[in-house]
Amino acid sequence: MKIIRPTLVVDKEVCLRNIERMAKKAREYNLRFRPHFKTHQSVKIGGWFRKSGVEAITVSSVQMAGYFAAAGWKDITIAFPVNILEIENINRLASEIKLGVLVENTEAALFLAKHFLFPVDVWLKIDTGNYRTGIEPHDTEQVEMVIQKLTEGKNLTFKGFLTHSGHTYNAQSTDEIFNRHFNALLKMKTLKQKYIGQFPDIEISIGDTPAATLCTNFSGVDEIRPGNFVFYDLMQQNLGVCSFDDIAVKMVCPVVAKHLSRNEIVIHGGAVHFSKDEIRNTDGKKMFGRIIITKDGENIMLDQMNYLSKLSQEHGILKVAHNQFVNFNVGDLVEIIPVHSCLTANLMGHYRTTEGELIEMMPKF
Amino acid sequence: MKIIRPTLVVDKEVCLRNIERMAKKAREYNLRFRPHFKTHQSVKIGGWFRKSGVEAITVSSVQMAGYFAAAGWKDITIAFPVNILEIENINRLASEIKLGVLVENTEAALFLAKHFLFPVDVWLKIDTGNYRTGIEPHDTEQVEMVIQKLTEGKNLTFKGFLTHSGHTYNAQSTDEIFNRHFNALLKMKTLKQKYIGQFPDIEISIGDTPAATLCTNFSGVDEIRPGNFVFYDLMQQNLGVCSFDDIAVKMVCPVVAKHLSRNEIVIHGGAVHFSKDEIRNTDGKKMFGRIIITKDGENIMLDQMNYLSKLSQEHGILKVAHNQFVNFNVGDLVEIIPVHSCLTANLMGHYRTTEGELIEMMPKF
Repeated sequence: MKIIRPTLVVDKEVCLRNIERMAKKAREYNLRFRPHFKTHQSVKIGGWFRKSGVEAITVSSVQMAGYFAAAGWKDITIAFPVNILEIENINRLASEIKLGVLVENTEAALFLAKHFLFPVDVWLKIDTGNYRTGIEPHDTEQVEMVIQKLTEGKNLTFKGFLTHSGHTYNAQSTDEIFNRHFNALLKMKTLKQKYIGQFPDIEISIGDTPAATLCTNFSGVDEIRPGNFVFYDLMQQNLGVCSFDDIAVKMVCPVVAKHLSRNEIVIHGGAVHFSKDEIRNTDGKKMFGRIIITKDGENIMLDQMNYLSKLSQEHGILKVAHNQFVNFNVGDLVEIIPVHSCLTANLMGHYRTTEGELIEMMPKF
Repeated sequence: MKIIRPTLVVDKEVCLRNIERMAKKAREYNLRFRPHFKTHQSVKIGGWFRKSGVEAITVSSVQMAGYFAAAGWKDITIAFPVNILEIENINRLASEIKLGVLVENTEAALFLAKHFLFPVDVWLKIDTGNYRTGIEPHDTEQVEMVIQKLTEGKNLTFKGFLTHSGHTYNAQSTDEIFNRHFNALLKMKTLKQKYIGQFPDIEISIGDTPAATLCTNFSGVDEIRPGNFVFYDLMQQNLGVCSFDDIAVKMVCPVVAKHLSRNEIVIHGGAVHFSKDEIRNTDGKKMFGRIIITKDGENIMLDQMNYLSKLSQEHGILKVAHNQFVNFNVGDLVEIIPVHSCLTANLMGHYRTTEGELIEMMPKF
């Protein structure tokens, strides 16, 4: 297949390796592996996980649960504070598959306790330091109020405590990832110990790719839900979580213009392709991607003096070191390693494998 | 229609008013009105422009040109430095419609001069201060080299000079918009005057919504190509370009959690719905949207102390003033005015009208 416009290329071999590496780790630590499918949002790529024995998955919306349930996935957790407006769709899903949802407040707990028509697992969402959603672990009053509402309901199993330590994404070092993970573990274990007498089957579920990849202490944990690791990306590489070789997706973009006076190359590939998630380059400037060029048939990754520096709707601007400028020509294709593969995949809406095969994703409606 | 998940609602009446206002202005100033359709990317919404007499349009990719050509648009300019890898698609389009493309370098000019199989209008892209693409207007050597390559070609009309003063989007005041527009006009007129003896039919085409909306000097201009004005958004309102009443799209999002200790409300509505384009709030913090609540059946826009302050993939965090906190309940719907309507629409992939009608957009592949 000849690429002529911005294209998200996925390397199946690298994905399979990433999946099996994480599956193996889960087996070693005796953890249920429930990967988050919001990263790839694709039934086809979801199928690649079955080879590693995956049967339980995580998604981020009721809609996404419906998409994967229709493709035969029978054990799905919607890892997002339950949206009670979707109760009809939730009940329909619960009649078909083993469904898990998240609760973090009494309003939703009360509503679910009244409205579930089929058995559903309910996790209590705990905030271990990400400060986005969840009950703070020291707030046992709130924990107990929510549990009480839940236990009054029918068709409802209080499944345990779930957290997403998303603050590992902002860590300044791998040490900080270890610390934040360990801190989250302590909080979760304390909760489990406090309530296990009353609820002997409760579990702990944790989520983030950085800790799931790097850490080796999963004491008390029953389940991990990493998602990004299937592709990884520049953000994870920059965090020290993966190597460049582990990154399974790249954008391929045509060069359309060159501006020597500013050492800039213009590509077709903008905010509607990459998303505007950024990291800081070593020069302190915003970076939206690293560049790989083809020279004499070989792929060469340029150093960090060469990078995707600006995005508008369809345009991308590459800042290029003076000595590399001659290696870019109008009509060339360049590869860009995206900063945040989840958002890039979501924007592109489909993939091509390195063999040119089309891989579809969940439709937008 | 009952909204249960993040939904982009478009107010057709406001769109029609925005379109007719701009069409009327174009008529008054004797300008060809060639609106940019990358904002809405929808055949249905494109149809709304026909009522105001629009026949010529602008798009940002060959793919988008194909989408609108298939829907009956016969006069399309692709306002993006021509991607020569798409020459086959360009030739196919040129065989069917009146097609315009942009050139800014000799490589592309030479290629087009050799490869066009059907008549195409070619505009020279000029950089009037946006520093993204285009030849700098004082660089007449480059201008003449490109023109020379073009005039050697068959099936090719050198149409004139085209610019997009995208730097009006970063203006700090409406005065600065006027100044940047006037400055761009001077540069474009100087070029036109220099070459009109040699090419008596050359034209000037300019682009941006801020200048097209606010400015009243279009001396020497033949064509305007604004796009965002059909919807406007918080960025334009913040620039002083439009009022809140002119904004035609809003995201409707469910409330899923409340965190009083941080004065935060969590909505379903994140980076995959809004895009991460931001403006600065009066408190210096990032703002991704303004909030409208419904109270006693009335829509109330909250002041800027209440705003969409953070986005992750599916979550949006509203910072809410303490006295407004009680007005949000789990299961409520809130309306959010998006910062950048073009990117929000692109992410959502479809609209609902205020009457609940589904409006489709260009498919992603």
